[in-house]
Amino acid sequence: MLSKYKILIAYDGTSFGGFQAQENTISIQQLIEQALTKILRQPIRIVGAGRTDAGVHALGQVAHFSAELNYAIPRLLRSANSLLPQEIRLLAAEPVDDHFHARYLATGKTYFYRLHLDQTASPFKRFYSHHVRHQFDLELLRKGASLFVGTHDFTSFANEASRGSAAHNPVRTISALDIVEEEGGIRLEFTGNGFLYKMVRNITGTLLDVAKGKLAIEKIPTIFAARDRRLAAAAAPPHGLCLAKVHY
Amino acid sequence: MLSKYKILIAYDGTSFGGFQAQENTISIQQLIEQALTKILRQPIRIVGAGRTDAGVHALGQVAHFSAELNYAIPRLLRSANSLLPQEIRLLAAEPVDDHFHARYLATGKTYFYRLHLDQTASPFKRFYSHHVRHQFDLELLRKGASLFVGTHDFTSFANEASRGSAAHNPVRTISALDIVEEEGGIRLEFTGNGFLYKMVRNITGTLLDVAKGKLAIEKIPTIFAARDRRLAAAAAPPHGLCLAKVHY
Repeated sequence: MLSKYKILIAYDGTSFGGFQAQENTISIQQLIEQALTKILRQPIRIVGAGRTDAGVHALGQVAHFSAELNYAIPRLLRSANSLLPQEIRLLAAEPVDDHFHARYLATGKTYFYRLHLDQTASPFKRFYSHHVRHQFDLELLRKGASLFVGTHDFTSFANEASRGSAAHNPVRTISALDIVEEEGGIRLEFTGNGFLYKMVRNITGTLLDVAKGKLAIEKIPTIFAARDRRLAAAAAPPHGLCLAKVHY
Repeated sequence: MLSKYKILIAYDGTSFGGFQAQENTISIQQLIEQALTKILRQPIRIVGAGRTDAGVHALGQVAHFSAELNYAIPRLLRSANSLLPQEIRLLAAEPVDDHFHARYLATGKTYFYRLHLDQTASPFKRFYSHHVRHQFDLELLRKGASLFVGTHDFTSFANEASRGSAAHNPVRTISALDIVEEEGGIRLEFTGNGFLYKMVRNITGTLLDVAKGKLAIEKIPTIFAARDRRLAAAAAPPHGLCLAKVHY
């Protein structure tokens, strides 16, 4: 009998073409499906809570799959992790109700965007934190961040989704956007009910322009109102971004 | 006129054959010499405070070189860092007295050895922290560590140095061996007046056997007294080790 399972996944996205399969790249999803298919001797397809782009990381991606499971869960995790590259780890698995769906039932997500401000970029952060060279005003960053909290039409901060995806309602709610200091840098913690394509990186890029004095904070309401992606700043690079948690 | 300069270096040692040139590998020293030679248009040779093995990292390696310098130091650092791979960064440089010597004048060094104890190894620590799977007694680790502090003959905890190096006095003083908790793990902080070849990794391997209950703590004085490398445990792997600071 087929049963449904929820899995919790961490990955270093540096070497992959993103969570979901793209042409001419190796995806994290594909590697997990291959490992589970081999172990469980049946074709396994996983459904992730959301895509992450190439170079983006995860501490707590969630996915589900259906299988006839004749493995104890700890053994399944060990076997899958021994087949997967070290960049990808299944952290946990649990049986879930038949109507569980990793994407449709997610009520929100938390993303981290990491920045470091050392004079010389640290070799140890080069894949995990965006290095900001310019003069940088942390107080302006905090003030700017507060303008994104709440329910807004985020059209100006979203890239067009890839071909073939359904048209979106561009209204989302960011319930928290906190600036947290950590060793050698800061992270922006975004929690919201959903995020449009590249929304976290576009907001971060815009906040960086504010903190560097390249964009007046007063312009932000105008950018929101224009509903025009061209008015906001370039996306911050992918390697600073990490999907921290999916909420259900 | 030739002047002497001291440089401070950080590196991610994962991809290199060690700090100092070895046959058939690329060394960190060699890449820095190539960058400085190109920028300063004169053959530059650097002398490091000490070797680090393949896979070992540094936050604060020190080296010196002599050159006719017609570059301002900030520009030299920027130019060198733009030529070097992102894994290697020159953090600082300063003119020093003619009699400065990075190795002979060092009065001590601080090394970190990082361990993480998560049930599943984190993808983000795989190159920087040794994952310990076994049951592990932190109190035993602390007690064991205290036995290494002080002045001892460390023959049992040193590998034979490579061919051609001079015979050593095996007595060294470890002034501190602290266990520091950090996010998701711990680090062993070794400070001493000098360390024999693989001494930090051999001590760490032995302490891990103590903390796992594989070696009785009472055996440590016997191992010291025997002056026999075969009695101590296998070296802990290189990727957990980091040269944090050279003292002058």
